[in-house]
Amino acid sequence: MDKAKITFGTREDKKALEEHPVFAPKFDADGLIPAVAMDAETKEPLMLAYMNAESLQQTLALGEAVYFSRSRQEIWHKGATSGHVQKVKEIRTDCDQDAVILYVEQLGAGACHTGRTTCFYRVVDLEKGTHPTALSFTEADLSFDPNSVYGK
Amino acid sequence: MDKAKITFGTREDKKALEEHPVFAPKFDADGLIPAVAMDAETKEPLMLAYMNAESLQQTLALGEAVYFSRSRQEIWHKGATSGHVQKVKEIRTDCDQDAVILYVEQLGAGACHTGRTTCFYRVVDLEKGTHPTALSFTEADLSFDPNSVYGK
Repeated sequence: MDKAKITFGTREDKKALEEHPVFAPKFDADGLIPAVAMDAETKEPLMLAYMNAESLQQTLALGEAVYFSRSRQEIWHKGATSGHVQKVKEIRTDCDQDAVILYVEQLGAGACHTGRTTCFYRVVDLEKGTHPTALSFTEADLSFDPNSVYGK
Repeated sequence: MDKAKITFGTREDKKALEEHPVFAPKFDADGLIPAVAMDAETKEPLMLAYMNAESLQQTLALGEAVYFSRSRQEIWHKGATSGHVQKVKEIRTDCDQDAVILYVEQLGAGACHTGRTTCFYRVVDLEKGTHPTALSFTEADLSFDPNSVYGK
């Protein structure tokens, strides 16, 4: 899409937000909406990050995921440093339009800065009753060396 | 797990949060963490909601999804009204532990209060370049009558 022309609908009543075919995303008090990136092929979740209106517009214009980094307080074109760009295949929103899901093709070795294919590489131990609650690592093993990609 | 015994780890340095097998979830300034529920069978996303520490502890204790309703500002045991309980099969967290994903068995007709199987029933039109940006409805059609389940 032409970025200059990307606009969002106005948020009217609840019924309209739920049933109208108009994208009217809700940005919170900090101007952000949560965005979950999932692998378009495997349906595995890759990461959860946030977008502001500008980064969502850039995502639509570029066809690549652009987030807003809360820690750095800046627009964050995923993959700009690492080459691990996320090509957007589909974007969904939910009933009240306060969340988005991106189905992406993850380029490069993985989505996570720890060197893994996904950020969701740990599972909560539901049965063990450990204190504090324990995590187990999944098979989403190190797929690249983060230092060689991101530097120290 | 025994709810009385459910505790979370303390959030230490970044490396520990990423690499230690201890669940130390980050709750934001409002005491909340985003939680994405996905169908354990189909891997389709069902909804994105929020949990506070208490609702996360209840989720672990019950084995059913318990959220915190931001609009009502109260603990929200999903399905308490509708019968559409979410049986928790797996919970994952991400590298910095500020998000969780729940793989659930969705009981009843669907997750969404609009009467659909999923809240993510609309897709952003990436190609059309409409102003404002348009949404298309997916095949996640009405699977139940919300009025008969939730009342008016």
